[in-house]
Amino acid sequence: MSLKRTTIKDVASYCKMSVASVSLVLNNKPNRLSDQSKNLILEAAKELGYRPNQVAVSMVTKKTYTLGLIIPDISNTFFAEISRALEAVASSYGYTIIYGNTNDLVSGDIQYIHNFMDRGVDGIILATASENHFENSTTLINLIENSSIPIILIDRPIENVLIKSVLLDHYHGAYIAVKHLLELGHRHIGCLTGPLHLRSTRDKIKGYEKALSEYDIPFNLEYLYEGDFRPTNDCTVLPYFLDKKVTAIFAHNDLMALNLYKQTKDFHVSIPNDLSIIGFDNIFLGDFLDVPLTSISQPINEMAKVTIEEILRSIEGDTSPQVFTFTPTLKVKSSTTIIN
Amino acid sequence: MSLKRTTIKDVASYCKMSVASVSLVLNNKPNRLSDQSKNLILEAAKELGYRPNQVAVSMVTKKTYTLGLIIPDISNTFFAEISRALEAVASSYGYTIIYGNTNDLVSGDIQYIHNFMDRGVDGIILATASENHFENSTTLINLIENSSIPIILIDRPIENVLIKSVLLDHYHGAYIAVKHLLELGHRHIGCLTGPLHLRSTRDKIKGYEKALSEYDIPFNLEYLYEGDFRPTNDCTVLPYFLDKKVTAIFAHNDLMALNLYKQTKDFHVSIPNDLSIIGFDNIFLGDFLDVPLTSISQPINEMAKVTIEEILRSIEGDTSPQVFTFTPTLKVKSSTTIIN
Repeated sequence: MSLKRTTIKDVASYCKMSVASVSLVLNNKPNRLSDQSKNLILEAAKELGYRPNQVAVSMVTKKTYTLGLIIPDISNTFFAEISRALEAVASSYGYTIIYGNTNDLVSGDIQYIHNFMDRGVDGIILATASENHFENSTTLINLIENSSIPIILIDRPIENVLIKSVLLDHYHGAYIAVKHLLELGHRHIGCLTGPLHLRSTRDKIKGYEKALSEYDIPFNLEYLYEGDFRPTNDCTVLPYFLDKKVTAIFAHNDLMALNLYKQTKDFHVSIPNDLSIIGFDNIFLGDFLDVPLTSISQPINEMAKVTIEEILRSIEGDTSPQVFTFTPTLKVKSSTTIIN
Repeated sequence: MSLKRTTIKDVASYCKMSVASVSLVLNNKPNRLSDQSKNLILEAAKELGYRPNQVAVSMVTKKTYTLGLIIPDISNTFFAEISRALEAVASSYGYTIIYGNTNDLVSGDIQYIHNFMDRGVDGIILATASENHFENSTTLINLIENSSIPIILIDRPIENVLIKSVLLDHYHGAYIAVKHLLELGHRHIGCLTGPLHLRSTRDKIKGYEKALSEYDIPFNLEYLYEGDFRPTNDCTVLPYFLDKKVTAIFAHNDLMALNLYKQTKDFHVSIPNDLSIIGFDNIFLGDFLDVPLTSISQPINEMAKVTIEEILRSIEGDTSPQVFTFTPTLKVKSSTTIIN
């Protein structure tokens, strides 16, 4: 493997022409060279794998046809699915996506925004980290508000930041999830939440509360358990809910619902007969379970389409801080049933 | 949101100093300015969010402390897991990773190698696409062999390319998987393969064959079914194997094994009593199944460590085409049992 990039000088020496002539031809500048000489140069350039220095080129043209996508967790299937959808749309516009994975740290958001700006992407799509670190959050907000390139938020809004965003109506999603359980006769419904400082989590709790209130069920803080969206082996979750005598659990994402599934085996609890479970995101894995997981589905493809179209509009100068909110739908499968 | 990057000129006009003075201070060049003036400039720069133009800086320093990682499928849990491991090690060396996802297309590999070179990464880690497209493959090999920056292969070797690589001994992995089934008494063992033109797939078939030969079982091409590594709803796979009267199936990755799980329900086949299944990769999802999936585990963290250390060594100039091969291990769970 050669560690040297082919230079104009290499091409010149290969085809025994002057550097100046080669430079004129390869940079598409006016010149008086014969077609034969031009072809000689172009073929030598091709032969040697010459490519213009795009870093230099991008300083002039200002466009790289590359978007940066920052996601909180590459191993979270939901973000993998939305990434694929974004990529498909971006590709149809001739754009390439490069990724950054923050492990849910705001410092990761900051680092990747800087890195992508330095790498010269045309715009950034940000699904921000869930970490709650006040100092970092302030830095992030400053960075977003003073960014030299357009940034669009997807999935996770940031409190008090006025910026173009493509969001899901988490309130409504939670509302229809819990209403589904209520309609099946459940009255003691546990809520396995995401990180509480995320606005999407708080919206979901409000939707949960709204559905309960329609059935005159008081909101009981004891029925809430704060999770972290990960399918970690936290084996205290299910016992907590069983102790509260809930008959159904609304999990704020499918990965945490999967974790509940795993624990039911240890406690000889049968889904859905002993316990109904509903998730959120409707990731493909829910279908592979022995008892397919009822869930709330996000319109990923539509969200991806608008996100790409809007970041491209921002790149063209229209950075109006519009918020596009999408409505999720209920997908009833086998993990929820009428109360015994 | 401001679309303009803060320039040296902005800082100069903000603190009412000359552009030349501000430039000297912000570029850390020798100057005769008073400490007071210097501080004024530095504080103004901070206030306005000035950052040096890294694209220009990187043209001089030549180092960006960024690595490009190209993976075939972001929604394949195995690649998500290895990505996280690579990122953890890279981060400990002060390196950031940016990702490209190829959807298993060689043209994607080519596009991202160019893109990452253009974006000025210091090195590229490539898990190449499984697509078999002769013309593209030739272009890819040329690109790798003539790359201006170091490239290291991970997981998937490329035939006839002499380049630093971190690989798994797929032959051995398949051998121990099939030997496990043989030891349980299985003699009719189906093999749900990856794409046949991948060397890793062919190595796994050789390992399968070797284990069978130790039990004097002839290799039967009819027991092979070519898959694509994806958990697609290909509902012809299980009936194919059932028709051949196999009692066990070795799937070349866990995602395809999950697909078999899903189909067993439609055919009223019980795992492991009617059918033993063993996967490959040992992704975390296998543990969440009702019958946890027996699988072959790759030493992901060790592979990630060597990959990062070796790409950094390549960046320092040592690009010797060493091949590091890791040995996988058997993780027996509940999906394999003694033949009835």
